[in-house]
Amino acid sequence: MSIPEEPDALAAFKHAFRRHAAGVVVITAVTPDGKQVGFTATSLASLAAVPPLATFNMARVASAWPAIESTDYVAIHTMGVRTRNLAERMSGSHDLRFDGDHWFVGPHGLPILKGVTSWMIGRIVERFPVAGNAVIVVQIEEGAVGDPDDALIYHERTYLKPGDQV
Amino acid sequence: MSIPEEPDALAAFKHAFRRHAAGVVVITAVTPDGKQVGFTATSLASLAAVPPLATFNMARVASAWPAIESTDYVAIHTMGVRTRNLAERMSGSHDLRFDGDHWFVGPHGLPILKGVTSWMIGRIVERFPVAGNAVIVVQIEEGAVGDPDDALIYHERTYLKPGDQV
Repeated sequence: MSIPEEPDALAAFKHAFRRHAAGVVVITAVTPDGKQVGFTATSLASLAAVPPLATFNMARVASAWPAIESTDYVAIHTMGVRTRNLAERMSGSHDLRFDGDHWFVGPHGLPILKGVTSWMIGRIVERFPVAGNAVIVVQIEEGAVGDPDDALIYHERTYLKPGDQV
Repeated sequence: MSIPEEPDALAAFKHAFRRHAAGVVVITAVTPDGKQVGFTATSLASLAAVPPLATFNMARVASAWPAIESTDYVAIHTMGVRTRNLAERMSGSHDLRFDGDHWFVGPHGLPILKGVTSWMIGRIVERFPVAGNAVIVVQIEEGAVGDPDDALIYHERTYLKPGDQV
C-alpha cells in the first residue's frame, strides 16, 4: 500500500475541476496610487439580474488584492478567441500586463482591454473573506459589447473555443 | 428618441453574460424532512485548493433554498455531454427531478446522479446573503470521478461541447 500523494478531499476537488469547463474573463482595477492591475480569472458567475450582480473569487495574496481591497470599481472583460493571447498575458509577468497599446482608460480611470467580446463596470458591494481568499460581489453599472467572436473557454489547462450544440 | 427597454446597467450585464460561456453542474441536497432537491447551475467557481473551497450562487426564493439554508452538505456534479438531458431535467419540473433510477443515495444521504463526469461532497462553510440571493461557500471533503466524457458547456442559452484548442 502506497501513501497517497494528496488527501482525498484535495484529489476530489482537483479531479472535479479538471472535468469542469469555464469561461475566461480578465478583471482590471487601479491601485490607490494610480497603477493599473489586472488578472485572468475563470470564476466569474452571475448572482442576480435585478439588480445586476456578479461574483468572482481571488486569493488575498494575489498581486491585485491590494487594489481590489481598496478600490470601489473593477472592469470585467469577457474574452473571445481573438484575445486568447491577451488572456495569457494577463496571467503572466506583471510588468508586461499593461505594457502596450492594448488598452485604454475607461470609466473611473479603469483600464479597458481592446478587442474583447464585452466589458462591464462593476461597483464592489461586498468583499467576503474566506480563509486566505475573498469572494467579491459587484453590481454592474455600465458596459459595452465588442465585435462578435467565439467565447474563450478554459478546460483541462488549455484554451478552447465552443464546439457543436448537443 | 425611443425609451430604452431596460436600464444601461441591466443591458450591460445581460450582454456580457451572453458572451460568457460556463461549465454546467448540478447541485443536490436533502431537506430536513428527507426530500431530495437539486438544480442545474452555471455558477460553480473554484475559490482555493488548500483547503479545497468552491462557491456557487443562488436566489433565496429558489425552491432548493430551504434545503441549502438548513443542511450542512451538498453534492456537486460536473456534467458531461452524455448527461445533457439530466442537466435539463434538473432545471425543469420539480416533481420529475428525482423521479427515476438516475440517482443513488451517497454520503450524508445525498442524492448522487449517475453518469456524471465527477461528483464531490461539499460541506457548507458560509452562506453570504446579498440582496435576495446567496453566495454559498463549500469545503470539498470527498468525491469520485466518472467515465470520460466531454464537458457540458452552456452558452447563448444552448448546451455545447468543447471545441478545438486555440
